[in-house]
Amino acid sequence: MADKAKKIAIIGSGNIGRSWALLFSCAEHLVCLCDNDPEQLAGVVDDLRGQLSLLKSRGLSRGHLEPEQQLKLITLSPDLAQCVQGADLIMECVPEVLEVKRQVLKAVDDVMSRDAIFSSSTSSLLPSELSEDLRHRDRFLVIHPTNPPFLARAVELVPAPWTSGDVMKRSRELMKQVGQAPITLKKEIPGFVLNRIQYAVLGESWRLLRDGVLDVEGINNAVWSGLGPRYAFLGPFEVGHLNAAGWIENYLQRYGDFIYRMQASMGEAGLMGGQLAEDVQKVLEADTPLDHIPCRRRWKDVRLAALAKLKQDLDTEERERNEEGKSVPLPSDH
Amino acid sequence: MADKAKKIAIIGSGNIGRSWALLFSCAEHLVCLCDNDPEQLAGVVDDLRGQLSLLKSRGLSRGHLEPEQQLKLITLSPDLAQCVQGADLIMECVPEVLEVKRQVLKAVDDVMSRDAIFSSSTSSLLPSELSEDLRHRDRFLVIHPTNPPFLARAVELVPAPWTSGDVMKRSRELMKQVGQAPITLKKEIPGFVLNRIQYAVLGESWRLLRDGVLDVEGINNAVWSGLGPRYAFLGPFEVGHLNAAGWIENYLQRYGDFIYRMQASMGEAGLMGGQLAEDVQKVLEADTPLDHIPCRRRWKDVRLAALAKLKQDLDTEERERNEEGKSVPLPSDH
Repeated sequence: MADKAKKIAIIGSGNIGRSWALLFSCAEHLVCLCDNDPEQLAGVVDDLRGQLSLLKSRGLSRGHLEPEQQLKLITLSPDLAQCVQGADLIMECVPEVLEVKRQVLKAVDDVMSRDAIFSSSTSSLLPSELSEDLRHRDRFLVIHPTNPPFLARAVELVPAPWTSGDVMKRSRELMKQVGQAPITLKKEIPGFVLNRIQYAVLGESWRLLRDGVLDVEGINNAVWSGLGPRYAFLGPFEVGHLNAAGWIENYLQRYGDFIYRMQASMGEAGLMGGQLAEDVQKVLEADTPLDHIPCRRRWKDVRLAALAKLKQDLDTEERERNEEGKSVPLPSDH
Repeated sequence: MADKAKKIAIIGSGNIGRSWALLFSCAEHLVCLCDNDPEQLAGVVDDLRGQLSLLKSRGLSRGHLEPEQQLKLITLSPDLAQCVQGADLIMECVPEVLEVKRQVLKAVDDVMSRDAIFSSSTSSLLPSELSEDLRHRDRFLVIHPTNPPFLARAVELVPAPWTSGDVMKRSRELMKQVGQAPITLKKEIPGFVLNRIQYAVLGESWRLLRDGVLDVEGINNAVWSGLGPRYAFLGPFEVGHLNAAGWIENYLQRYGDFIYRMQASMGEAGLMGGQLAEDVQKVLEADTPLDHIPCRRRWKDVRLAALAKLKQDLDTEERERNEEGKSVPLPSDH
């Protein structure tokens, strides 16, 4: 699949690091997965084998390799310098603690090639915070995946003010090449984009709960049985463009003022915590007790996998119809 | 399917009125669909027959009746008084104009039974505005469906301050009985719940666009390839409860402050209009020109139907596994 195999150095062999290892090895790149915890590393290959077999059983395999061929492309190493040496792309995936990340990034900075792409998979730290003191900071960006990456393809690419345009462009190409859907931010912003939108949903949900408009179950249902289905296929502007009354400009003309007045009247979402957080916890625990959470996560992943497969199949059908000239062309990237 | 067939009077035979007619006739209720436009009424039966056949072909039929049996349960009438007489549930589905709706509701009010449920399918008017001067205002609520109702099951039930608790309870039971997912608001609020959350998403999307963080395509992709898949199955609080690091209380403890600071720094979403709205329109038109919108709506409905079927199949499998005792019980209503 790869035009030319690249060397990918992944620092940190937790869930995110392992997902990257899978994605890049599917596309026939050479992966070196590094961790300073030998116990953690010891379990990696069996886990990846299991994940590949699960993906295969769900029809979600990527690339042309058999699982065992693919696993041969992944080297494990406790030695950061050896792992980073000669790497085209370095992905830091250690725990979400600023000082821990800075320390690892500094160690990479000292040994990396001048022309490598240098990245962190952080979800909440800004690329400028992480890279300001690095020698290779112009090579640095955040590559933030959605969890789990195989089942939700969005990846945010977030530049620091000093990140080179070439690094952004090459990162985007690489992400597309391994089958992800890159979202390139023009500048950094706390929470990036996915989490900002997710927090807007959570913030309004909190406000509705706090103001006694409805209960936790009602809010959850409103999203999964109402808004979620459309957002599985369309973004917010596309939803507006296809609304019952016309197209996006018409929609904003008709509803813009209503939306504006509503937003102005919303008041602050407020800090999510205290008694209300305890109440939410109780309601959710009644449905899913803490010891059932791993099982419910699998429940969720089974559904995300089925949806990913469904989208893949629908897109394939659509492309085939387009080739036969039977259909209006798809918008880009769907 | 119905324990006891009810008479449902639907005033207005546009898309929403027709969807209600389908849903209630699937469940073997008697429907009277009323419209003062004979041309509009003339096309109803053929359209409903087509919709039923499409639903059947997608495995989304509800109830036990054959299409032709079902269509026999639907009477068309230009006469409002005749339609409303003896009805157990009255659903006003005329155009979204306050004065038009008030006039129709007044006409219904004069002839309806004392113990009927009296509703409007409005998406943007408050039940108090619509019903304050009605004699039967204690029987009145808003029943707001999601579009298209057969494919997205959420229905908002919104009381005015004077709506009787019994009306709310019976409306909820009826909605469940016809296969919808009722969401009962405890009090009215502009935009209700679905649109408030939808506008929170749109508002944050607008802000990101306006502040130059990324482009229209990037925002759309972030939703459909990132957040949408999870929201197709889980609400915002459930997503937090199943997050990688633990459960909802833990999630809010870890991220609550970060989310709060981010929201405080967000600034106003602002009025969506002007040059930026024109720019958004241009981008969306380049992908989907105005004359392709009907075709793209069908593209969307095919996907919503496939997802609805997928969810139905996954839920059936899950229930069967539960009956065999092989799985942790599902949370309520999934």
